[in-house]
This record gives sequence, structure tokens and C-alpha cells, in this order.
Amino acid sequence: MLELRLVQGSLLKKVLEAIKDLVNDANFDCSATGFSLQAMDSSHVALVALLLRSEGFEHYRCDRNISMGMNLGNMSKMLKCAGNDDIITIKADDGSDTVTFMFESPTQDKISDFEMKLMDIDSEHLGIPEAEYHAIVRMPSAEFARICKDLASIGDTVVISVTKEGVKFSTRGDIGTANIVLRQNTTVDKPEEATIIEMNEPVSLTFALRYMNSFTKATPLSNTVTISLSSELPVVVEYKIAEMGYVRFYLAPKIEEDEDETKPQDDVIMK
Amino acid sequence: MLELRLVQGSLLKKVLEAIKDLVNDANFDCSATGFSLQAMDSSHVALVALLLRSEGFEHYRCDRNISMGMNLGNMSKMLKCAGNDDIITIKADDGSDTVTFMFESPTQDKISDFEMKLMDIDSEHLGIPEAEYHAIVRMPSAEFARICKDLASIGDTVVISVTKEGVKFSTRGDIGTANIVLRQNTTVDKPEEATIIEMNEPVSLTFALRYMNSFTKATPLSNTVTISLSSELPVVVEYKIAEMGYVRFYLAPKIEEDEDETKPQDDVIMK
Amino acid sequence: MLELRLVQGSLLKKVLEAIKDLVNDANFDCSATGFSLQAMDSSHVALVALLLRSEGFEHYRCDRNISMGMNLGNMSKMLKCAGNDDIITIKADDGSDTVTFMFESPTQDKISDFEMKLMDIDSEHLGIPEAEYHAIVRMPSAEFARICKDLASIGDTVVISVTKEGVKFSTRGDIGTANIVLRQNTTVDKPEEATIIEMNEPVSLTFALRYMNSFTKATPLSNTVTISLSSELPVVVEYKIAEMGYVRFYLAPKIEEDEDETKPQDDVIMK
Repeated sequence: MLELRLVQGSLLKKVLEAIKDLVNDANFDCSATGFSLQAMDSSHVALVALLLRSEGFEHYRCDRNISMGMNLGNMSKMLKCAGNDDIITIKADDGSDTVTFMFESPTQDKISDFEMKLMDIDSEHLGIPEAEYHAIVRMPSAEFARICKDLASIGDTVVISVTKEGVKFSTRGDIGTANIVLRQNTTVDKPEEATIIEMNEPVSLTFALRYMNSFTKATPLSNTVTISLSSELPVVVEYKIAEMGYVRFYLAPKIEEDEDETKPQDDVIMK
Repeated sequence: MLELRLVQGSLLKKVLEAIKDLVNDANFDCSATGFSLQAMDSSHVALVALLLRSEGFEHYRCDRNISMGMNLGNMSKMLKCAGNDDIITIKADDGSDTVTFMFESPTQDKISDFEMKLMDIDSEHLGIPEAEYHAIVRMPSAEFARICKDLASIGDTVVISVTKEGVKFSTRGDIGTANIVLRQNTTVDKPEEATIIEMNEPVSLTFALRYMNSFTKATPLSNTVTISLSSELPVVVEYKIAEMGYVRFYLAPKIEEDEDETKPQDDVIMK
Repeated sequence: MLELRLVQGSLLKKVLEAIKDLVNDANFDCSATGFSLQAMDSSHVALVALLLRSEGFEHYRCDRNISMGMNLGNMSKMLKCAGNDDIITIKADDGSDTVTFMFESPTQDKISDFEMKLMDIDSEHLGIPEAEYHAIVRMPSAEFARICKDLASIGDTVVISVTKEGVKFSTRGDIGTANIVLRQNTTVDKPEEATIIEMNEPVSLTFALRYMNSFTKATPLSNTVTISLSSELPVVVEYKIAEMGYVRFYLAPKIEEDEDETKPQDDVIMK
């Protein structure tokens, strides 16, 4: 039997909004450790990894490891019916082919049960090794979202270049070019407004803006985002979920020359 | 001659927003008693009844009973041109084929006259007998609107079941099922937040969500909504208009078995 | 070399929003006097004139007169990437076929460079003689925008009639007629809320609402709008830009009889 009670139910609503456009169907894996998901996007270019640790739930009962295949669009439809202040409980009986989402209003005057059919989904769990990154940038998540949105109005790809002084986001399109430079800045009033760069060696990598903009759907989950870059590895764009875990997005850099950077990246395979 | 002056003109704007999607053309009936309307929706499934009592107007002159046929879409276009704080006066000369809506800004610096052609509309006035209902639920109108909207993302019909403890709204669709229970709750800080159930006998009836969602367009008119249910009668969904009258919506329950509750209700006739 | 630094960069963003729907491509003229533009709309019915005086810029360097052809849609895309509090600098090297827009955040932590290709655009600069107007109306810009929008829901043209007592905006359409009268009112709490009429002789002129509604895109630039009317001249709709200049729109009145006032005005030529 499975019963996971999350007092801050709005977190689960935000998680679904963050990943539902990227992934259609996916297995949620539930174990004593936590509630997690790993899935490729539908075009098999980007990877999403979600972890909500068991300690973050008010009540967490998971008698045995279970993998529940869900359509994220349908799950999102149901979670949208939860109020932002509602407590959400995820329930499943052993061997059942359904999952139930229960929403309790703060006053307990309104109780909703939404039952959804589970799906059989083939998936292989990719091992993601811990890696050393050439550069790690932590910055305000809203600023990152703004930059990706702005650059997408000019071009299709973004070159992210990190030096000790700052991080540069560049694009090029039919109407011209754009360069946005953020300086390292740790002396801000609020820690979440800092732009912090940890760099072992300079790095400059090209990515499809379409995917970056999908990743920024996770912005409401966290005030900051961490971007980990290495020339041989997919970039990791991570949004921490307060005291519970994270949503991480992985995307392989485009390997074409700068001159071809507007070529679509549908042929790039995750390594 | 007809001259009806309504200081709180925004009420008339809200009334039109409440009914214009349901009814295309209708006769407004004006008598010494008040300004009223009764009309079937365009698919002849639901009935709307509006009453604005003469006492609610600052000035009310209606020399003889008159029935004015109007296109509600066009009337709504004109009323949208009134400011929310404007005083609205409805004027018609005897025998004229037009009606004039006059809007006065609070400072009297802006005066607008909108003149609209009247229409000849055949309509029979249905007598709606006073009836005893098995159950009457009064609840916050915004909560009712939220529930109808949420359930419509899952299914096509809603089963409303009332017991002494509370009222349950249920639906079923391709992606799963939903049950929302509101408990009776009279001990709230604000009276308009109460959920109050008067019940003679338990009742469980099925309705098309499409119509219920149309009715909730009247939500801005009132903080509360009253739902009167009887197994032999159309449901009455009533929004009171402060100190003036009401908008009431009538809808026959679906007579199919629960198992067929997703069948369209276009064949249901108002009795 | 050209380098124009505008601390209140949001002004330039608003200017582009005001004119980009009316004009596709235009030459910006830069001289010691200021940064200006004059262009016909794409259907050659209306004329736009913009002036930003050099004194309004924090830094203004323009070594020689230069005319820069730009696509306003593309320019607007780039300026939308500037934050509302950003400082905007327009830069161009002598003989270059590109222009650069630099955006600096207030904290200087984010610096963006957007480079856009210039275009060769044929244009003749029309001399606009100073003229005497029969009537000049100054009124709140938001009120003018509201009136144009409201009337456009009823008809295609507006008759603007000015007398000493006030200004009347009228239209007529399939669903009826509308008249909106604003009284002269100079005794208001805030000067920008006044409606002030300077009149030499009464005037009544007809204009296409489609263009009037385009002009009101400039509303965010100024709290007030000035409408100058003469029976022999195009109307001038002017939005002042605080301490810097103006955006002016010119539109020839429709010369048809009132009875034909719904006829399209595509055949009207600017004189």
C-alpha cells in the first residue's frame, strides 16, 4: 500500500507544470527513499529527473517499491483541481491499476478524490554518474527564464560561455544577434539574487533554446537555478525543491560549428 | 413611456454577462412590478428567469406593460461601453422600435447614449409553479463555479448527491473519476462562506456540466448560490441580486442510468 | 559615430509599441537636434511623426546627420528584451550597416547588446506646415482610448464634433448608434484629468475608427492626448513624451456624406 501526504500540495502542482510539456507518459517510482521520476522527453533529446525525498512528506508509507505509469497531461488536469493551499495525498492499493489523488482544503470542509487509471510504460532507468563540471553557474531562476525567452525571439540556439567574470548568453538569427552578459555578483541584499560562478576552466557550449525554454517552466519551484556545464557532458539545469529534492533537466550540447548553430538539433542523441 | 434609472449600473452589465451566452434573443418584460425576462436557452434545454424589482431602481417609470425583444449579444456590446461606476438609464418611447441605454459617469462629465433596434420575438411565458424541494443547498458561489469548472476537465456530467452531512459532486470521464464533498458548515467567520443544507430527503441527480458552467457566469452577481433539488423537478440554480431580485436557471436532470452519464443531453426536454 | 544614451529606456520601448503596428519599415533620422521619424502607415492613409530631442538624452553624440532604415517589428522584438528599468543606448559606427541597442540593468550586473541590420528605405520627408486649427481638445489619453475602443464595437467610423460646451464622439453600425459627450471640465483635482477645449469655430469631422484605435497604442506614453481639428486639414492626435518630444499621428477626415460613413476609407489620400 502506498500513501504519501504532502501538506504543501502546491509543490506537486508546480512539479507537474514543470515537466508535463516535456514528457507525455512516465513512470513514477516510489520507494522508502522517496518519490521519483526519470524520463526522456518525447523527442528523446532531453532527460528529466525528479526527486521528492520521503522526509519531505508529512506522512510517507510505501510498503514495497512500486512503479506507477502515468499520463502527465491527465495527472496535471487532476492536480489543477487542487487548491493552492490544499493538502495532497497520493494513494494506491497493492496491485491496483489506479492511483488516487486526495485533496483536503485547509479547513477540511472540502475533500476531493480523483482516481486515475495507471498505464504500462516501458522505460529503462539510465544511470546518471556523478560528474565533474568545468563550470557551475547559480543565478536567479526568473533571470534565466527571462534570458531564454528573450533570446528565443531572436534565434534558435543559445551559446553559453562562462569565464571567471561572468556568464554570456548569445544567439544569432535572421534579424540580428544578441549577447547578454551577467556579471558574477555575490554582494546582493538577498542571497537568491546572487549570480555565483564556480569555474575550473572556461567553457562555451551551444544548446537549443526550445528545450531551455521548456526547462524554465520549473521556475515557480525555486528562486534560483543551477547550470552545470562541461564540454563532454550534457548540461544540467537544476531547480531545487525546498527541503525535498529537485527537478533536473539534462540536455546534450549541439556539436555543430558556430556557423551552423541555427540548424535544428533533432538529430542530437543524449549520451 | 419607459424610463428606468439604475444607479448601480454595473448590476445590469453583470446580468447580461450572466445570460448572454445561454440566450441569444429574448423579450424583456416591463411592468409596474419590475423589469424581468424569461427565456429558454437556444437548445431548449435550460430556462433563465430574471427579475429586477421596480423598488431597486432610483427612478422607475413604466406607463404600461411592454415587452421589448432584444438581441442579448448586441445589448451586451452596448453595456460593455458603460463604466463600472456609471448610472444606467433604460429608455423607450411608446410605440418606438428602439431602446436607448444612457450611461452617466459619476462626475456627470461623460454622458453616452446608445440606441438599439428592438426585435419581434415569439415567446410563450411558462408558468413556473412554486414547488417543494427535497433538498436546498446554499454555498459560496465561487466555490460552486470552481467545482463545475474542475469537474468539466474530467467528465461531461455531474451527479449532485445531498445528505444531511454534505453535498457530493461526482463525475466520470475517460481519464478517471472525481468526487468532491462539501461538508455542511455554518460556523464560518463570514456568513457568505457558509455551506448550508436544508434537506427533507436524500437526493441524487445528474446534470450536464456544460449548462452548469454556463450558469456560473452569474457568479459576479452574488457571493452565494442556492441550488434546489427534487427528483421530479428541474434543478433551480439561483443567484440573488442584492435588494432587487434574482437570476434563476432551471435545468432538467438527466434521466439516464449512471452508467450512461456521459451521453449527451441534447434530447432532454424541459418539463 | 552615433551614441545616444537614454536613462529612461522604457520610453523607447513605449514609442515602438505605439508605432510598430502602423508602420512596418521606416527611417530614423538622427541630427544634432534629436532622434526623429516620419512615416506613412503601410496603407498610406495615416502619417506618424516622432521627435525625441537631444536634450532628453543623458548622452547624445551624433557626428553627422544620419538616416537609419529599420524594420520596426524587429526593432520592437529587440527592445522588448530590455527591462523596464534598463538604460538603453543606441549605437552606430559611421558607414556601418548595423545598429546596436545596448541595455544596462540599473545595478550594471546585466549588460545586453542587440545588433540589428539596417535597411535601405525610400522615403520622402513631407513638410508639415504649422497650421491654425478650428478646435483643439485636450483630454485624458485613457478616456480617448476607451471611447475609440467602445465605438469600434458598434461602428467603423467616428464623427468628432466640437462645440464650446464639449466634444461629441458618434458612430453608427448595424446594431444601432452611439453618442458619447464629454463636457469641458477644467476644475478637476489632477490637471491630467481635465478636458479642455480651445475653439475658434465649431467643427464636425468623420474618421476611420481603425486608425484612431491604432493611434491609441501610444496611450502609455502620456496621461493626456491633444486632438487638433480643422475641416480642411488632417486631424493631429498628439501624445507628448515628457521633456523630450512627442508622437503625432495625422489622419485625413473622410469626405463622404454621413449616410455613407461606414464605407471603407482606403481610398482617402493624405493631403
